[in-house]
Amino acid sequence: MPLATIKWVNNSIKLIDQRKLPGKLEYIYCRDLETLWDAIKTLSVRGAPALGVASALGMLLASKLFKGNDKNKFLKFMEKSSAYIGSSRPTAVNLFNSLARIEHIIKNNQEKAISEIKKLVQNEAIAIYEEDRIVCRKMGKFGASFIKNGGTYMTICNAGSLATVDYGTALGVFYAAQEQKKQFKVYSLETRPLLQGARLTSWELKKSGVDVTLICDNMAASVMRNQRIDGIFAGADRIASNGDTANKIGTYSLGVLARFHEVPFYIVAPYSTFDLNIKDGTEIPIEQRSKEEVVNFHGVRTAPDNIKVFNPAFDVTPNYLIKAIITEEGIISPVNRSNISHTFGTNAKK
Amino acid sequence: MPLATIKWVNNSIKLIDQRKLPGKLEYIYCRDLETLWDAIKTLSVRGAPALGVASALGMLLASKLFKGNDKNKFLKFMEKSSAYIGSSRPTAVNLFNSLARIEHIIKNNQEKAISEIKKLVQNEAIAIYEEDRIVCRKMGKFGASFIKNGGTYMTICNAGSLATVDYGTALGVFYAAQEQKKQFKVYSLETRPLLQGARLTSWELKKSGVDVTLICDNMAASVMRNQRIDGIFAGADRIASNGDTANKIGTYSLGVLARFHEVPFYIVAPYSTFDLNIKDGTEIPIEQRSKEEVVNFHGVRTAPDNIKVFNPAFDVTPNYLIKAIITEEGIISPVNRSNISHTFGTNAKK
Repeated sequence: MPLATIKWVNNSIKLIDQRKLPGKLEYIYCRDLETLWDAIKTLSVRGAPALGVASALGMLLASKLFKGNDKNKFLKFMEKSSAYIGSSRPTAVNLFNSLARIEHIIKNNQEKAISEIKKLVQNEAIAIYEEDRIVCRKMGKFGASFIKNGGTYMTICNAGSLATVDYGTALGVFYAAQEQKKQFKVYSLETRPLLQGARLTSWELKKSGVDVTLICDNMAASVMRNQRIDGIFAGADRIASNGDTANKIGTYSLGVLARFHEVPFYIVAPYSTFDLNIKDGTEIPIEQRSKEEVVNFHGVRTAPDNIKVFNPAFDVTPNYLIKAIITEEGIISPVNRSNISHTFGTNAKK
Repeated sequence: MPLATIKWVNNSIKLIDQRKLPGKLEYIYCRDLETLWDAIKTLSVRGAPALGVASALGMLLASKLFKGNDKNKFLKFMEKSSAYIGSSRPTAVNLFNSLARIEHIIKNNQEKAISEIKKLVQNEAIAIYEEDRIVCRKMGKFGASFIKNGGTYMTICNAGSLATVDYGTALGVFYAAQEQKKQFKVYSLETRPLLQGARLTSWELKKSGVDVTLICDNMAASVMRNQRIDGIFAGADRIASNGDTANKIGTYSLGVLARFHEVPFYIVAPYSTFDLNIKDGTEIPIEQRSKEEVVNFHGVRTAPDNIKVFNPAFDVTPNYLIKAIITEEGIISPVNRSNISHTFGTNAKK
């Protein structure tokens, strides 16, 4: 059983400090919103589903922090808190989806007493937390149907227990296949610049007894050419209504390489990762991060001073490169607007 | 004018210690073969053409180190020295080509006095050194015809002045275009695991006033998709008689991505990089390097202990992904056995 990545404990949000992994297993306790904001911004907690849960628990924390009886002040405070949490990372839609759910609860119940609204916020936040656990296990089961005994797979970044409450999206597929006693191998791409694949995915897969081999990102093509790869599984940070998928930088590269080598490329992501309000990937904002992430590794300089650096945190993989999107509601394939709309029973924006 | 990467000074081989770049500019003086072997093995000196020159100067050094008048002992010593130098790195053919040239000189003159053979070895080694300087400038001029004013280009690893005596192969194209007063931009891929792109290419291009931007390897596809890239230039470590090209790991990946995005992909390499004795890329041995290069960065651990790692130093790009090979004898395009054979006026192995 994997460790809980995120938990509500004694009126605080308890998070594994993922910047310290794999060297040390340490926790951060967020007792104010600033600590949570920093933890999200600096990637102590990361992964789209985990960010969804963290922001929900952030709103629960905000409601606990508010003292007093002035309803207007309370509503304003919750509104400001939501905007503040939302300002931490622009690409992951789960974060905004969770905030919207909590805001919706508050709005629909604003006539009630503060204590009652607080109770409802707590219920919704805990529901978001529990849903993540259930949803990941459902996706894992659907995805495990694509894992064959003796197969070899590839994954990028960390879409594992560390990216969710405790099970994972892409890595949940491997955990589910493992529970079904299948034997298989996984190549973990190290995922520059912050090495989530090396530091987190290798760590959690190895800890769970999965046969994992670490490679650098630029080795993936060579591995695909020289041996049989049976599938690639990646998570997502935001999926447009047509299936275009934003995920960690390098995912699009893998999608192109998969197409060239005829390797099926799967995205594993819950409904909360979909942004059905946007038409396609061009509408997804791409977070640009500090050049220091590229030129500095834990204090060791990797490039000359004053060098120009381009450091987008994400890229967008167009729907036609994705063989299937595995969700808790089922498998979407081929990936297109009508199949997505059909799966979720909604009208995706035309 | 770039610094000399490698030089024969006072009966020793003077090398820039490239492991220290970009932090420090330090030199290694090889006064014995063991120091040279270590410098090659640990990549203090690297780059196929530079290895060709280093091994030639290594044979010159060996000839100087031999004291005595026993011809048989001298010939044996030179033979052993050649095998020893050749054991340092298996993929770069320039190394073996240089050793073969020196061996050939010795064999053809073995009836002469030791002092005379030594003189001939010296002349041949210095010729190999001088040829590198001339050949790089010729390739640069041919390649610069593919650089347009206002264009944007990409390169991987370091095929620059630091990979040759003082000018470069792929980067020589940029230097030649610069001498022609063309304005252009270059994306330098950092090139994991040893970051030659970040540490060396960014350093030397910036120092020479070229507009260079550093990216991680997994960002190349996204850059190709989101902006116009006019060409990709890479070096080579060994080219088979059909044009299949071994180069730094990640080059094949770039070749596939270039094809997908319709970006012309060029290899810049002298005749000494060709191995016309082999039919295609499957015959090129691929050096596997230590896992420590991947999991350790200057003493900072990037992955859990005891993780399995796959660390091939090179990959092979098939000829059909290469738009042209730029050599000192001219431009080979399309890249195939007959055009290569024609360019070099030899009969490539059928």
